[in-house]
Amino acid sequence: MLKTKDTSELLKIKNGTVVSPKGFLAAGVHAGLRYSKNDLGIILSEVPANSAAVYTQSHFQAAPLKVTQESINQAGMLQAIIVNSAVANACTGEKGLQDAYEMRAHCARKFQLAEHHVAVASTGVIGEYLEMEKIRDGIDQLKPSSQNNQAENFGQAILTTDTVMKTSCYELNIDEKKVIIGGAAKGSGMIHPNMGTMLSFITTDAKIDSDSLHTVLKDITNTTFNQITVDGETSTNDMVIVMANGLAENQTLNENHPQWSQFKLGLQKVAEELAKQIAKDGEGATKLIEVKVTGAKTVNEANIVAKKIVGSNLVKTAVYGADANWGRIVGVIGHSDVSLQPELVEIYLEDTCLFKENSPQAYSEETATAALKKEQVNILVHLKNGDASGKAWGCDLTYDYVKINASYRT
Amino acid sequence: MLKTKDTSELLKIKNGTVVSPKGFLAAGVHAGLRYSKNDLGIILSEVPANSAAVYTQSHFQAAPLKVTQESINQAGMLQAIIVNSAVANACTGEKGLQDAYEMRAHCARKFQLAEHHVAVASTGVIGEYLEMEKIRDGIDQLKPSSQNNQAENFGQAILTTDTVMKTSCYELNIDEKKVIIGGAAKGSGMIHPNMGTMLSFITTDAKIDSDSLHTVLKDITNTTFNQITVDGETSTNDMVIVMANGLAENQTLNENHPQWSQFKLGLQKVAEELAKQIAKDGEGATKLIEVKVTGAKTVNEANIVAKKIVGSNLVKTAVYGADANWGRIVGVIGHSDVSLQPELVEIYLEDTCLFKENSPQAYSEETATAALKKEQVNILVHLKNGDASGKAWGCDLTYDYVKINASYRT
Repeated sequence: MLKTKDTSELLKIKNGTVVSPKGFLAAGVHAGLRYSKNDLGIILSEVPANSAAVYTQSHFQAAPLKVTQESINQAGMLQAIIVNSAVANACTGEKGLQDAYEMRAHCARKFQLAEHHVAVASTGVIGEYLEMEKIRDGIDQLKPSSQNNQAENFGQAILTTDTVMKTSCYELNIDEKKVIIGGAAKGSGMIHPNMGTMLSFITTDAKIDSDSLHTVLKDITNTTFNQITVDGETSTNDMVIVMANGLAENQTLNENHPQWSQFKLGLQKVAEELAKQIAKDGEGATKLIEVKVTGAKTVNEANIVAKKIVGSNLVKTAVYGADANWGRIVGVIGHSDVSLQPELVEIYLEDTCLFKENSPQAYSEETATAALKKEQVNILVHLKNGDASGKAWGCDLTYDYVKINASYRT
Repeated sequence: MLKTKDTSELLKIKNGTVVSPKGFLAAGVHAGLRYSKNDLGIILSEVPANSAAVYTQSHFQAAPLKVTQESINQAGMLQAIIVNSAVANACTGEKGLQDAYEMRAHCARKFQLAEHHVAVASTGVIGEYLEMEKIRDGIDQLKPSSQNNQAENFGQAILTTDTVMKTSCYELNIDEKKVIIGGAAKGSGMIHPNMGTMLSFITTDAKIDSDSLHTVLKDITNTTFNQITVDGETSTNDMVIVMANGLAENQTLNENHPQWSQFKLGLQKVAEELAKQIAKDGEGATKLIEVKVTGAKTVNEANIVAKKIVGSNLVKTAVYGADANWGRIVGVIGHSDVSLQPELVEIYLEDTCLFKENSPQAYSEETATAALKKEQVNILVHLKNGDASGKAWGCDLTYDYVKINASYRT
C-alpha cells in the first residue's frame, strides 16, 4: 500500500479500502438485480464491532434503514453490512419491510451471525420490490476476503448512476498501535442530505466505546456528508455506518483519551474525502465546486451559505460554462436566511476578488475563466460579520444531468 | 376586445393589457442598452394612482427598488413606472443608486410629474452600470398611448431571456361601474421569489384606498407570485407594483365594501395568470407543471410542499422525460419540513393514483406518459393530515436551461 504524509500525524493510504483495517473482509457479486454489473455486496468483521449510524431525515425512511436501526439499537454492534443496488426497497410498505428482514436473516444464516449484528442497506429505484430469490442466491455466492480486489467488488456492487468508486483510507498511531480507518461510499443523484448521504460505510480497527463512536459520527457528518449537494434532494435511503472492531488493541477511545482529537481528525478526513468524491461524481458533473464561507456569525450560518451557493442551479450552470457570473452568487447569498451586512460581503474566485463594497471589482476575465476551467473550482465568500467559517461541496449542472435524469427508468 | 366568461362575475378580456383600464398609457422603445430589442418602457396614468408594491427579500436589494420604495412611501401614489431591461442596476453601489435617482428624475421632467410619483424598475445582468446617456435619450423618445400596440412595445421592453410576453386582463362590475384590471410581467430565470417575482405591473381603474390596496397585494402575492419557481433563485430586483387610478368611479373599495371579495378575486386571477405564464416560460421550459397539495395541516404547509415538489430538479427532469418516476415526488415530500404521516400520503398524476398506503400502485404507464406529455402537467398530493390546500407552479428542467445559463453573458 502506497502511503503519503497528509498531516503531521495522519498518513493517507492511497490504495486503502474498507478491508485495510485489521479483521475486515468484503465481497461483491452480480446477483442479477441489474443487467450485468455487481449489485450485491457485504462488509464483514471477524468479530462484532461497536457500530453507529446516522440515517436519512426523510419522512419516508426506506425499509432497510428501519431494520438496520433495529439491529444497532439492540446492542450497538454489527458484524456485517449487506447491501444491494438497483432497487431501493423504499415506499414498499409491509412487504418491503419483510423483505429487508429476510435479507438480514439470510445473511445471518449464511455467515452464522446474530441477526442483530447485521445491517441492511439498499439503493436504486424507489417503489419497486426486491427480487428475494436473487438476493438469497446472491448472498450464498458471497466469498468475503480481506483482499483489495474483493473490496473493489464490494465498491462496484453499491454504485448506481455513479461513474467511479469512492474510497478513502487513513492510518494513525494511537497508544503506539497502528489504527486504520477505511471508507467506501456511493452517491451521485438525490444528493442533498440533511443528515447522512446516500450510502457510506466506514470501517476501523480502532477500539472506541459505543457512545463516543455515535457522538463523533454525528459531529463529523455535519461538516462533511451534510455539506455536499448535487441536486438538493434527500434520499429515502441515506445512511452512514461506521464499524469499529477494536482489533488495533489501543486503549479504548473516548473524549478523555489524549489522542481523541487525532482519531476524530482521521475519521473526519475519511468522511470529507468520501463526501467530496460523491460531490465530484454528481450526476453529469464535470467539476467539483468547493465553497468556503468565512466571517459568519456562527458555523451553522457559514455552512448554510456555503451549501446554498454550491446548490444553486444558476451557479452550477455558470461553473459549467466557465462564466464568472458572480451576480448569481450574490443572488444566492442575498436570499440566504442568515444575518449579514451586504456592503461588507466579498466574493473571490480563488485569489481574484469579483465583488466588494457592494460594487463590481475590476478583474481579468482570463484569470477567472482559467480558475473556472479547473477540475476543482474554489469559491470564497467573506461575510465579515463574525469569526465562523464553513465549507460545502457540489458540482456543475450539465446537459448530462438532464439526460441522466430525464430517462433514468427507461 | 374579446371577452369570455370566466366566472359568474369576472370577465376575462383576452387581448387586454395594462392600458385596458381607463386612463392608463404605455410605451416601449429601443434605447440601445441591448442590440436590437426594445429595452426601455413606461406605464403612465393620466392621474396619480393609489399604488402599492412588494419587493424582493434579498439582502442585496437593487438600486431601483430602493428608489421605488422611497417614491411609494412618500404618498402611496404613482403616476408612472419607468423600466429598463438588459442591466439590473444591482450590486452597483452608490453610483448605481444615483443612476436610479437620475432615471426617476429624468422621467419626471419629461412627463412633468412629481418625482415621488415615479417608480423605477430594472432587470438584466447584475453588477453592471446603466448607460445613462442612452437611458435619458430613450426616455425622451417614449410616446405613451392607450393603444394596445404601445402596451406590446412596453411588454417587449421588459423581457430578458423570456420567450413570450406575459399579460392578463379581467373586467368586473363594481357599484354598477365597469372596472378593469390589467397586468404585464416578465421573468424566466432566477425565479423563486420569497415575496414578489421578477417584475410584474398591474393596473386598474378601480377606486381603492391605499391601505386596502397594499393589504390585498400582499395577500394575493403569497398564493400567486410566491408560489412559482423556475430555479430556486430570488432575484435582487423582484418587484410587483399595482396602480389603481380610480377612474372607474366606483365607491372606494376596502374590506367593508360589499364587492371586496369580488375585486380581490379579480386581482388574484390576474396575478395567478401572470405567475403561471412566468413559470411556463421558465428558461428552457417545454411544460408548465402545476402541483396541488390537499389535506395539509395549514395553508402554509400545503404551499411549502407544493413549491418544493415543483422546484425539485429530479421531478423537473422526470417531467421533461415524461417519466412517471413518482419516487422522486416521495423523495421531495419526505424531506419537506412539515407535519405528515407517510402511510396516509397519496400521489396522483391527474386521475391516476401512483402511490398510496406507503406502497406502489398499479397504473397504466401509457396513461401516465400521456399525462406527462401534455403542455400542462398536473400533480396532485393528498397529505390527508388536515383541511388546508395550496398550489404551486413551475416548469421542466431541460437541456436548454443548461444551455441558456452556461452562457448567459457571452
